[in-house]
Amino acid sequence: MQSFTLQQLADHLGLTLSAGSEAPVQPELMISGLGTLESAESGEISFLANSSYQKYLPDTKASAVLVKPEHACLSPVTCLVTDNPYVAFARLSQLFDPVRMERAQIHPAASIHHDAVLGEGVTVGAGAVIEAGVMIGKGSVIEANSVIGKDSVLGHDCHIFPNVTIYHGVSIGNSVRVHSNTVIGADGFGFANEKGKWIRIAQLGSVIIGDFVEIGSNTNIDRGALDDTVIGSQVIIDSQVQIAHNVRIGDGCAIAGCTGIAGSARIGNYCMIAGAANIAGHISLCDGVTITMCTSVTKDITEPGIYSSGTLMMPNRHWRKNVIRFSQLDQLAKRIRQLEKEAASHKTSR
Amino acid sequence: MQSFTLQQLADHLGLTLSAGSEAPVQPELMISGLGTLESAESGEISFLANSSYQKYLPDTKASAVLVKPEHACLSPVTCLVTDNPYVAFARLSQLFDPVRMERAQIHPAASIHHDAVLGEGVTVGAGAVIEAGVMIGKGSVIEANSVIGKDSVLGHDCHIFPNVTIYHGVSIGNSVRVHSNTVIGADGFGFANEKGKWIRIAQLGSVIIGDFVEIGSNTNIDRGALDDTVIGSQVIIDSQVQIAHNVRIGDGCAIAGCTGIAGSARIGNYCMIAGAANIAGHISLCDGVTITMCTSVTKDITEPGIYSSGTLMMPNRHWRKNVIRFSQLDQLAKRIRQLEKEAASHKTSR
Amino acid sequence: MQSFTLQQLADHLGLTLSAGSEAPVQPELMISGLGTLESAESGEISFLANSSYQKYLPDTKASAVLVKPEHACLSPVTCLVTDNPYVAFARLSQLFDPVRMERAQIHPAASIHHDAVLGEGVTVGAGAVIEAGVMIGKGSVIEANSVIGKDSVLGHDCHIFPNVTIYHGVSIGNSVRVHSNTVIGADGFGFANEKGKWIRIAQLGSVIIGDFVEIGSNTNIDRGALDDTVIGSQVIIDSQVQIAHNVRIGDGCAIAGCTGIAGSARIGNYCMIAGAANIAGHISLCDGVTITMCTSVTKDITEPGIYSSGTLMMPNRHWRKNVIRFSQLDQLAKRIRQLEKEAASHKTSR
Repeated sequence: MQSFTLQQLADHLGLTLSAGSEAPVQPELMISGLGTLESAESGEISFLANSSYQKYLPDTKASAVLVKPEHACLSPVTCLVTDNPYVAFARLSQLFDPVRMERAQIHPAASIHHDAVLGEGVTVGAGAVIEAGVMIGKGSVIEANSVIGKDSVLGHDCHIFPNVTIYHGVSIGNSVRVHSNTVIGADGFGFANEKGKWIRIAQLGSVIIGDFVEIGSNTNIDRGALDDTVIGSQVIIDSQVQIAHNVRIGDGCAIAGCTGIAGSARIGNYCMIAGAANIAGHISLCDGVTITMCTSVTKDITEPGIYSSGTLMMPNRHWRKNVIRFSQLDQLAKRIRQLEKEAASHKTSR
Repeated sequence: MQSFTLQQLADHLGLTLSAGSEAPVQPELMISGLGTLESAESGEISFLANSSYQKYLPDTKASAVLVKPEHACLSPVTCLVTDNPYVAFARLSQLFDPVRMERAQIHPAASIHHDAVLGEGVTVGAGAVIEAGVMIGKGSVIEANSVIGKDSVLGHDCHIFPNVTIYHGVSIGNSVRVHSNTVIGADGFGFANEKGKWIRIAQLGSVIIGDFVEIGSNTNIDRGALDDTVIGSQVIIDSQVQIAHNVRIGDGCAIAGCTGIAGSARIGNYCMIAGAANIAGHISLCDGVTITMCTSVTKDITEPGIYSSGTLMMPNRHWRKNVIRFSQLDQLAKRIRQLEKEAASHKTSR
Repeated sequence: MQSFTLQQLADHLGLTLSAGSEAPVQPELMISGLGTLESAESGEISFLANSSYQKYLPDTKASAVLVKPEHACLSPVTCLVTDNPYVAFARLSQLFDPVRMERAQIHPAASIHHDAVLGEGVTVGAGAVIEAGVMIGKGSVIEANSVIGKDSVLGHDCHIFPNVTIYHGVSIGNSVRVHSNTVIGADGFGFANEKGKWIRIAQLGSVIIGDFVEIGSNTNIDRGALDDTVIGSQVIIDSQVQIAHNVRIGDGCAIAGCTGIAGSARIGNYCMIAGAANIAGHISLCDGVTITMCTSVTKDITEPGIYSSGTLMMPNRHWRKNVIRFSQLDQLAKRIRQLEKEAASHKTSR
């Protein structure tokens, strides 16, 4: 279990320690974990980011808290004052992440082609397969049973978790993390139809991924047909996401789980796509668009803002009645129009 | 091919054999498989669970049938009488399941860390990787190319199919089956945003799974942020399911394919979630809730019952008209209100 | 990089070369790639399939183009005239697909059971596991870390990409391609409930797949309960698709990404299922059905045509108002009926 003194944590964040209302500054206090204000125990550090949790601050058992300036005076324990306690908490959390593997080791059961080039301090797990022509930057980790296809290039400090498949010729930037059983660079879904038979269009493009990208598990990002599929930098992608061929995703986007993005869609910068959304092929989203959960996007979006589709959940008995009415909606609208006509003619005739 | 005498099957189920209307009791008859009343052949056993299949009973070619007491008199062949023929059928089906591997063997191409502890009779397939500190209970099977991360614990009689990834520190109970390419314990999707940059929140919780849990293929269950993601006992989870960080699922739930459950959602006991449903983050479902196919759950459910959302399929031409009206629905409702006002004023004026 | 003379490409397609308006026929010209009319460079071949791109033909930098007879006179460069330029383009694209592996090699780090039978020229990658009784037809490729379960049979010229899992007893035809991390033959989701406990129904059927089938990544096709799950020939299946037990899919179907097909559904021949559609269990679709994106199919379809469900995306503020009205739709319909009654009685009374 990693542990750090409060002073070490403050230094890591570039913050200073302040006394709490019931405790002096204790720079040498050992901190061995993080917790919420409610759950943290002695020896742990907590945070107050959202004012609605303020009520838990006076009684917290945490040994220290990350707080905004306006909450510092309320803390019973040592505090670290910052404008963004949630970001500070995120930074600290990484310090306590257990190391999964011995670093800078090549497991004897890995299969590494003699034409692959591995940077300094690269770790390769058991059963991992690195094909010919692959280049992997320094400090990157390729975990057990992952496969890196011919001529693919990974930057430095990447982390490829177990059982990932990266196809040939894929280009991945620095500090990219790819979770297990995700597939990058498989063929896009492209076929021509000749009299009922599907003729495969070889997918000759590739996938290009920027820096500081996070990709969840069981996700897939397909290679392009002629051009490439492109993911910007600072993009976070959850699990069970499908990104089809020739999609382009701008910088800083967040894409939640179970979402599908069809071929050649373009997503601007800093878009937020909630879970189980689906974006049709060849659609463009401008920068700063938010798509809510389960929304189906079938036309371009040219103005930033929040967009939705679907209907709200209700008891099934209630839903059945309404959903049948939905099937009659055009008729209902015409009946309203008819009533309006009659009312108008009635008024005229009066 | 396994085969058993009718008497052995009766003993396995704790039932007695009864004569059919056209056949004496034949305890020594060999049974080598199962089939439906329509498809079963001689030497196979069938079942009648749902009365709507009763019409097939008189002409079945099965050598024996599992029936409810009220159907026993209708069976032409030897029958085993039970209140729940479908459950009896399920139990028998397991007897005929072919064994996939030689049990209690460690394949020489497996990579097992010397600090891992394997119980008696554990089977490990080729290419499987068992990291340091792992404990695996007796009789469990880890199939080819699966990876069990550092310090994870599996109970007895578990079956991990090929290419599964279980991350570090995961806790799995007894008799849990996990199908191929499923991922348990990958990082939850947690990030803080600092001026457009995503700062990863290390996911320091884990995943805890109870006993007798069945998990399909290409599913993922993410580890918790600070606390754990928890799956109860006797839970069945289908394929392509996403269960996000800090979700809690009670005992006895069934979750069908393509469903997504977002972060910190709580599902009570004995809930049934149909396919392609999506449950928003931080939502609670009480015990005994049924969610129908493709439903989007965006608020708490506090009463047991059946809940739905969405619209019904119809011919596209018809749908296009109705769906445009849906976009005008608030206006339509206002026009109805206006007509009502006019009608009321008309009545008054009359 | 592969390259071919124009004459070789023409011969491959069975077409003849025609002069362009600004260039003579150059049968010896080397072609090293493909591109769109806009993006192609000298030394590449392009195509004009859709008249809306005709405007790019006069200025294309491609060295040759595939065109329909009516466009031949417009081409500045050498052209190959064909009724279906898109199909011709698809055929050529396959020539330029880089070979991922050295063919006809068995990697020393593969685990192949001595009872498996591999045809002539079969390639097996590092870490791949071929279990007992498996038969693989000539020229097939099993890539790294894929697992082929006991007694499964693959035809000739199949390509199994890395980290695929094929369970025991699965039957796959000729020229079938399966992309990474896909699972074929895992247990269907079948359980009987006995007083709140789920009793597993062993899935004793298998999966049978025809010829020339393409399957994307992270897809799963479950084995049948008693009978088999059956996929016809010339079927194309995208990524993140779930096909449940006992589903039957006819020939020539296309199934796009994120789609779920529940147990025992029957899909006719030449159906097109768009992305993120869901088809309920035991549903039948006749031949020639098209299902649009995100549609939920909950009843049989007996007439070919296009079918849809769902609602259109709109700005969230607008959607919120309409979606609340949807919850009142049955009441709104009753209010229209009431207005009509009043109007009718008014007419009568007049």
